Amino acid sequence: MGARELGQAALRLLNADPTASMGQIATAAGISRATLHRTFATREDLIKFLGRMSLESWRDALDGAGIEAAGDGGDPREITDAMRRLCGELIRDADEYGFILTDPTAERDEELVSEAELLQNRELRFYAAAQEAGVLRADLPVAWIANAVFGLLVGLRDGLRRGDIAVRDAERLLRETLFNGVSAR
Amino acid sequence: MGARELGQAALRLLNADPTASMGQIATAAGISRATLHRTFATREDLIKFLGRMSLESWRDALDGAGIEAAGDGGDPREITDAMRRLCGELIRDADEYGFILTDPTAERDEELVSEAELLQNRELRFYAAAQEAGVLRADLPVAWIANAVFGLLVGLRDGLRRGDIAVRDAERLLRETLFNGVSAR
Repeated sequence: MGARELGQAALRLLNADPTASMGQIATAAGISRATLHRTFATREDLIKFLGRMSLESWRDALDGAGIEAAGDGGDPREITDAMRRLCGELIRDADEYGFILTDPTAERDEELVSEAELLQNRELRFYAAAQEAGVLRADLPVAWIANAVFGLLVGLRDGLRRGDIAVRDAERLLRETLFNGVSAR
Repeated sequence: MGARELGQAALRLLNADPTASMGQIATAAGISRATLHRTFATREDLIKFLGRMSLESWRDALDGAGIEAAGDGGDPREITDAMRRLCGELIRDADEYGFILTDPTAERDEELVSEAELLQNRELRFYAAAQEAGVLRADLPVAWIANAVFGLLVGLRDGLRRGDIAVRDAERLLRETLFNGVSAR
């Protein structure tokens, strides 16, 4: 079993129980603890590996949504479309890499944090372009908009995990709430 | 130093570094590890103690906002006011008990989880009353509204911790985003 395949098995368990031990992860992957340790010497190494995978997936989301092309173009309609694509991509991401969104081990790793900052900056530039183009409110700091998107993804992940939200509703709920809020007026 | 005072010292460190060890917590509180262990036998005991404190604080937030009186009354203006008070109270909560919002140890404890469900149900009934009264959109499931509020609080906590958001802006950002969304139109 390769590192990626092992990573996927670990991910499935950790998304359900973020405190799962190396022994439990090995059992879930159907291998011995010793075999798991040959690929990942420590639990921290495994988490960092998953952290790198999740950053790749985030980068793919930004690429896939075409945020730079839309942002540089400055056309409100294209920016809106890119924003919608981004929401869809980020949901897939949050669903797949759920636990790592709030994992303190990943948050503490300097390499992961500085790589995450680069991706965060791409998102921030896109939100700023969306403000310029009149798509997003200009009275909210872009850093907060990014935090709000992230926070709603955490809320969505928890709702999906607890079965409060249906997978097929996820995209509509995120977009509606993010764009228009929950107020009836 | 009493358990509550120790808890407060632990909280300050854990909010900054959710992975802090018992040794680091003892140092931050200015006591020996042995003294810390006399009050909290394990790190898990300490986290559960903080979890119970945070649930008390959540209950105080629901009480302080007067959600039942407003929800039962059914007056849109009073419900709106209670909703605003609730946002303010929850922010104070999220700021004070920040790390525990996403701590996996607390999430795994059955006693804490069932107590949290009771409080969550109070919030859900209030959101349902707010939908009835035409204050909150009826096309969003109440469970999602609760998840969205929670998620935005996590985003706010992270933004405050990283210094992206000023404390005095927090309430406006949460309310504006939750009620009206980030779309310019």
